[in-house]
Order: sequence, then structure tokens, then C-alpha cells
Amino acid sequence: MPDSFQTIQSIGSKALLDKLSGFDSFKNSEVVKGIGDDAAVITKSKSSCTLLSTDTYVEGVDFDPTYTPFQHLGYKIVSAGVSDIYAMNGKPVSMLINLAGPNKMSVQMIEYLYKGIYAAGKEHNVELVGGDLKANHANLVVSISVQGEVNKKALTYRAGAGEGDAICVTGDLGGALAGLRILMREKKHWKEHGDESIQPELGDYQFVVKRQLIPEARKDLIETFKEHNVVPTSMIDLTKGLVHDVNELADASELGAQIYQAAIPIAIETRQVADEMQEDVDRYALFGGEDFELMFTLPEKKVEQFVKHFNDFVVIGRMIDREEGLKLQTAEGDIISFDELS
Amino acid sequence: MPDSFQTIQSIGSKALLDKLSGFDSFKNSEVVKGIGDDAAVITKSKSSCTLLSTDTYVEGVDFDPTYTPFQHLGYKIVSAGVSDIYAMNGKPVSMLINLAGPNKMSVQMIEYLYKGIYAAGKEHNVELVGGDLKANHANLVVSISVQGEVNKKALTYRAGAGEGDAICVTGDLGGALAGLRILMREKKHWKEHGDESIQPELGDYQFVVKRQLIPEARKDLIETFKEHNVVPTSMIDLTKGLVHDVNELADASELGAQIYQAAIPIAIETRQVADEMQEDVDRYALFGGEDFELMFTLPEKKVEQFVKHFNDFVVIGRMIDREEGLKLQTAEGDIISFDELS
Repeated sequence: MPDSFQTIQSIGSKALLDKLSGFDSFKNSEVVKGIGDDAAVITKSKSSCTLLSTDTYVEGVDFDPTYTPFQHLGYKIVSAGVSDIYAMNGKPVSMLINLAGPNKMSVQMIEYLYKGIYAAGKEHNVELVGGDLKANHANLVVSISVQGEVNKKALTYRAGAGEGDAICVTGDLGGALAGLRILMREKKHWKEHGDESIQPELGDYQFVVKRQLIPEARKDLIETFKEHNVVPTSMIDLTKGLVHDVNELADASELGAQIYQAAIPIAIETRQVADEMQEDVDRYALFGGEDFELMFTLPEKKVEQFVKHFNDFVVIGRMIDREEGLKLQTAEGDIISFDELS
Repeated sequence: MPDSFQTIQSIGSKALLDKLSGFDSFKNSEVVKGIGDDAAVITKSKSSCTLLSTDTYVEGVDFDPTYTPFQHLGYKIVSAGVSDIYAMNGKPVSMLINLAGPNKMSVQMIEYLYKGIYAAGKEHNVELVGGDLKANHANLVVSISVQGEVNKKALTYRAGAGEGDAICVTGDLGGALAGLRILMREKKHWKEHGDESIQPELGDYQFVVKRQLIPEARKDLIETFKEHNVVPTSMIDLTKGLVHDVNELADASELGAQIYQAAIPIAIETRQVADEMQEDVDRYALFGGEDFELMFTLPEKKVEQFVKHFNDFVVIGRMIDREEGLKLQTAEGDIISFDELS
């Protein structure tokens, strides 16, 4: 039969997930929201919910051990895990970590990995409560699941934004990709020049390399929301790039979005890297992933109030009617559809 | 430095886990019980707790794709996951599944895997609420975490057995290992005779092969406990073999244990396989893992009452003073220490 062996690549993992989600899954009445947001939502009590998120990291696919120190890898997977909980406006509580490690890994390498895990755990008040440690004949595969909680009144989905709401992002964008570009250049340099020049010269690039290797999840935003009783109308964490994630947010909220290119926050260090690479920094900010910043929407009036309490965010656009689609207004004032961007 | 590269094998994964657990982990006050039981326990409400368990399955280590159909693999990992929740006397609610799949896997193979996952999910009222689907250059690695809940009054740990309590096990033991022996023999046969004899003759072995490929977690016991308001004093699921798991239970409860060999339940089909293999069936029952039966303790008086409601269990021994250690009383009446067994 012609279609008896269909590769995953040939249909793409999104199509595969859609296919699988069409299967007849059992529905448990305690599940408030299953697949399709940053975390799953389960009933915890009358007033609160449990949040569950999970991710897998594959050596050679999701991380390159030649420039990823294991303590940084440990730190990063926890940052990414708790970021999903923050994206629901929740608080992380505990985590489970599974490791399938190859024989070439030493005890010391695993210790470094867990040092990073524990360091990030302490940062976010998350306890490691279990996990599995297995041998693998091949590469390192790490899975993490993070459990959190959220008051029902604070629970924030990707869906929920209103037309006219301001689209806000914390921090700055494109930094993680700039860091990756530097690390990849260093790797190439090592390959070409051998071990003689083993010391990477990352002095000028510390900021962007840190953004790539040890990203910080935005606990500070979520704590400030709570302190001032502010609940965003929708939220997502920026992991796959701004264009992708605006699309997710707008789609979930059944709206369109207009982004002002000039308003997108980009750090000076990120600009310097793009210049050096002779690349377009705007593309770093639009398509670079793994920044782990939070993108949220609020009615404009509430933005004015909230900025008094928290200032590490900017308004980069607003939600518009779905019919108008997804648009970027360039610094020159031109309007470009997202479809024309990639 | 002589110890700068220490392999995991050289210290063993248990020693490694002990080493890691000595790290300075953040303690979250909502965590009731972290690492060290069948599942972690987190505060859910005043009267209930959330249960979390997780496992990883590595192709070539934990399963052999040559004799493991993917739908069975999917079913088995869910059975194993919910079994951990049942072992805490809890009810599973939701699960997250991460898959790192090699390019050689087709869409159809993944569909089969998820068919098994959904079938077991329906069996145990568990909803798949999320997960990650990644490419891997190497082998298939599947991680599952299962979330459940339990009333605080019903929560049962490995610790808690009293001296004199009866040690009970559901079903029968050694069947999964017997099934594995048959499948391994078939694999050898295929290798030697090639594809001509592609049809395995499993007719006589269906019972044991099912025990290996599609084990059933003992939801029925937990439901009967609940229905009749019975709470065991301690409990564990039998995954690593009776001798190993009796040791875990006794150690957690700070007691010794005496097991009556003649009382250990062994199915006739399991005996037949051992006979055919010219092996000792008692060793299948003592050391064979993956039966996913439940072992629990109850005061003798309560056993007499409970047997009226549930009859698929037997008493195989009793908890004794820790000083007396772990002992097996043979059918001939001899007393053997567990240390002499392996």
C-alpha cells in the first residue's frame, strides 16, 4: 500500500498531533483544559486549579552538548518548565525529571545537570519530587514535568483577549537567538582551529549567551500581577518566536493582531550581534525563539495603571478584528501581513 | 585526576540517586512526600492530596521493538503509570506523555502507540492532557507522568505496616517474566529461521504473553478498598520482583518480613512455561518483575473481613520485628534469609 509507511517529517508534527487529538480520548470531568495551552488545567479545589506542563529535550536536536554545559542545561529545562506555569498566571510547586542517559555520561556530568536543576528549583520555589534515571544506548533525553497551582480567578489562558486590548511583552526579544548564533560561530571556530584555542572569547557576548544558555522565567511579572490583583485577559510565554506566538494568542482568542515593529524591545547587545553577523536584527526579534519572556494582553486603561507597578514590559501592538488578520506595521509605516514575513 | 570520569555503571543508579538526593533541594511546603514512594504527594485541599508518578521507557533497554507491538507498548506504559497511583490507594485522573521518536518510526507506528495509550486511558478513566512530540536521531524514548488524587484518610505509603500485619498480594506472580521468556525464545527462533516462520505460535502462551505485553493495573482492588472503607497499613506495586519489593515495604515500615513460599500465588500457565524452559518457577515468582500486582498489609482481623468483598488476593506472609530480618519459609519448612536467595 502506498501510504503504509508515512514518515513523521512528511506530515509534520503539528499535523500528527492534530491526527492524534482526533482519537477517542477518555474525558475526565476533573480536567478543565487538556491539550492546547501552555499547561493543562485540573480542578484542585472550589477556588483553585492544578497546572501541569511537560517538555522533552533531545541531545543533538534540542541542545548541542558541545556548547551546552550540563549545569546550564539543567537550569534551562526548569526555566522553560516553570515558564509554562507562569504563562497560565500560576505558581510552580513541584517537578518530576526523567533522564535517559548514555554510558558516555559520567556521574559528574549528571551531578552538574542536577546542580543546574536544583539552582533553578530554588529560584522558583519548586521542589524536585521524583523522576526516573535510565540507561540509554544512544543519546541523552531529558523529560521534565512541572506542577503548579493557580487561583481560579487568576487563571489566564491564551484565549480571552478582547478586541482593542494592548499586546504587551516583558524584557526584550531575539537575545536567545543572538546567543545561539555566537555559540554556533564559536563551535565552528573550534572545529576549524582545534583545541589550541579552547577558550571561547565570550566576554562581549555574555548577555546574549546567557539568554540562550540560562534563560530566566518571568516570576517577577506573575508576582506583581498577584500583588496588585491584576489579571491579564490572555497570556503565552514566548518560546517559538514572536510571529508564531502572536499567531497562537490571536488564534486562541479568535481575533487578529497588529504589531508595531518599532515598539518591539531589542537589547543593544542583540543588535551588536546581528550587526556583526550582518543579519537583520528585526528577524531575530520576530522569529527567534526561547526568550521565555511573557506576552499578555490587557485593556489599554489597565496598562496605564499596571505600568506604575511593573516597568519591564512594553506595548507592542493591539488585538484587532479577526477579519483583519495578523499584521506588522513597519517603522516606515507600511503594513505587512504576517504571511508575507517568513 | 583518577576519579574525574566515573561511569554511572561503576556506582550504580541507586547510589547515584542517593548522591543526588543529598543535594540541597528547595523544599516546598505543599509537598507532603517527595522522592521515595510509588508517587509523590502534594497538598490538594484540606482533605485530599494530589499524587504524581513518572517513568521513562527506552527502546533497547526497557522494551524490545522486535516483539513489542506499539499498541501494547502504549497500553503498558499507562498501566505502569496508573499502578503507581493505585499503590498509594489513589485514583488516577490525567497523564502527560512525551515521545522522542526516531525517523524510522512511521506515523502509523505512532498512531498505534497512542491507540494503546488511549485504550488504557479509557480503562482507568485517565485523560491525556498534554505532552511533547520530538524527533530523535537515535532510538524511541517515551516518558509518562500520571497525576491522581487521594483522600488524606485513604492515602497509603510503603511505610506504615505494623508488626504482625498480614502481607497480601493480588493476582499471581511470575507471569510477566514467563511471558518475556517465551517472547525471547520466539525472537531467537525468528533470528535463526528468518522470516519464513514469521507467525509466532503463541496459542498456548497467551496468558503469560499478555501478562508481559499488556499488564492490567489493579483498579479493582483500590475501588473495593474505597467501597468498604478499608485502608491498608502499607502498599507497593510489584514491579521489580517480590523479593525486591518486600524489602522496600519492610524497609520503609522499619520492620522485617517472613514470606511463606507455599503461599505465593503462581498461575498454572506460568508453571508450564518454567517447566518447558527447565527453570525454577519459584524464582520467576520471587524475582520476576513487571507483574503490576499490588502488595499490601492489613492486620489479620481485617483480612478476614476484607476477603468477603474481594477474593483475588492471598496472604503470603507477615511483618515481623526488624531484628529478625527478611526471611522465606520454604514449602519444606526451612527458613532462608533473603540474602541467601539471590
